[in-house]
Amino acid sequence: MPEISTTSKIEGTKAQGAKVVFSGSTSQEREAVVAAEIAKTGAILVPPYNHPDIILGQGTLALEMQEQAAEMLQGYRGSAEGGHRGGCSHAVASAMQNGTTNEVSTSKHLDAVIGPCGGGGMLSGVATALIGTGIRVYGAEPSFQGADDAKRGVAAGKRVETVKTLTIADGLRSPTGDITFGIISDKEKVKDIYSVTEDQIKAAMRLMLERAKIFIEPSAAVGVAVALYNEEFRTMVEKEAGPEGWNVGIVLTGGNTTVEAIAKLFST
Amino acid sequence: MPEISTTSKIEGTKAQGAKVVFSGSTSQEREAVVAAEIAKTGAILVPPYNHPDIILGQGTLALEMQEQAAEMLQGYRGSAEGGHRGGCSHAVASAMQNGTTNEVSTSKHLDAVIGPCGGGGMLSGVATALIGTGIRVYGAEPSFQGADDAKRGVAAGKRVETVKTLTIADGLRSPTGDITFGIISDKEKVKDIYSVTEDQIKAAMRLMLERAKIFIEPSAAVGVAVALYNEEFRTMVEKEAGPEGWNVGIVLTGGNTTVEAIAKLFST
Repeated sequence: MPEISTTSKIEGTKAQGAKVVFSGSTSQEREAVVAAEIAKTGAILVPPYNHPDIILGQGTLALEMQEQAAEMLQGYRGSAEGGHRGGCSHAVASAMQNGTTNEVSTSKHLDAVIGPCGGGGMLSGVATALIGTGIRVYGAEPSFQGADDAKRGVAAGKRVETVKTLTIADGLRSPTGDITFGIISDKEKVKDIYSVTEDQIKAAMRLMLERAKIFIEPSAAVGVAVALYNEEFRTMVEKEAGPEGWNVGIVLTGGNTTVEAIAKLFST
Repeated sequence: MPEISTTSKIEGTKAQGAKVVFSGSTSQEREAVVAAEIAKTGAILVPPYNHPDIILGQGTLALEMQEQAAEMLQGYRGSAEGGHRGGCSHAVASAMQNGTTNEVSTSKHLDAVIGPCGGGGMLSGVATALIGTGIRVYGAEPSFQGADDAKRGVAAGKRVETVKTLTIADGLRSPTGDITFGIISDKEKVKDIYSVTEDQIKAAMRLMLERAKIFIEPSAAVGVAVALYNEEFRTMVEKEAGPEGWNVGIVLTGGNTTVEAIAKLFST
């Protein structure tokens, strides 16, 4: 793990019985430490994102999300209760509304999913899992210090291989891998990527904690920030969805933060 | 509302369309303001806890808790998934274990419920709802500056009518009412009341936020603190439950706090 990982992430990992080996914070530094550890111990590498097995495994969350959304949207018509239950999960569906009306989308399925993008494994998995469903997939990135590498790479038609950012969304500091970038840059799979500022991430995180009562780390708030504060995204939805709006699923992952980290984040 | 209520509670109430009228922080001061408001506007009082309708309404959470626990405990045997789902709700069941063994209770129902006690409406309701089920009901209070009024009242055989405490569990600063005290002091209904320190409440709150990922205010952590840190309670469970332990349900309410309040709480 990078030396600058949050204490809760390090301690949480150790609590599962793991031996934690530290490295610098860029993916190059990390990979060098991994290679040395493998040479020394013969350990088997489970890659964090740039591998088909990881991508497919992480993509199963999109299947759960579809199930949960179907349950919620059915309940939504029947009772107030139904709409509330989804707030419990790490995948929450919210009704994106046209700015000029309070009408909620009448479609009983997800129209779009927003997933945060760091190394891009989860986003690639979600995009792969949703092929053929008609559900649009969008990526969400922090913009701070070039953390929007996937977005920039897609725009340039070439993967950004090195990122050095200290965005508060510390789970999203990695560049994409060659496999994940191949999926993310395919417009048939990921329609677009939107980025948000540190302040927007903080505002979204505060909203999720204080009002939705869901304990998430900054990285998990990035998709919410896109849905709420990215004008480009919101204008696109208004235009494409029309007055009925869309049912948008937002992936919230993870919850590795501490009360001290929250205190520090919101006192600056 | 007391003038010193947390901003999130005040703003959350206003967001529902309410006109908020402020008072001092003791129940006497509050009741005086209520009487003046009723005289001025002809408003109808919905009492916060000391009324049969309120008690019965709040008690319905115990019915939901029984349902959720049955679902969880069934799932617990079948899959790891089942045990996890309950973490979403405001009522969470945990397996209390004997200190010397890792065996989890094999009973497939709740053995006990712990509920926080302020005015005592919710605890009275839970105790009333669980009459005849065999599920033991326990109260949980902060001990700071005499906030353990229910416990002291039950011990003395006489309700403590005035409490002036600034415990961090600000939802539990009220004394019990005559109706709620009548129920709470009935050993057939509430078997016992345990109190915890401010530090124990903070430790339990940190655990719920950081590890259970459930966003709760200090008042909601008081029952968790009893289960984890009150030696008197733990010794009683070890003795009464034997090696199999109990399945204990803990009521978590509410979540009215802010990132600023959390920052303040954990920086002192």
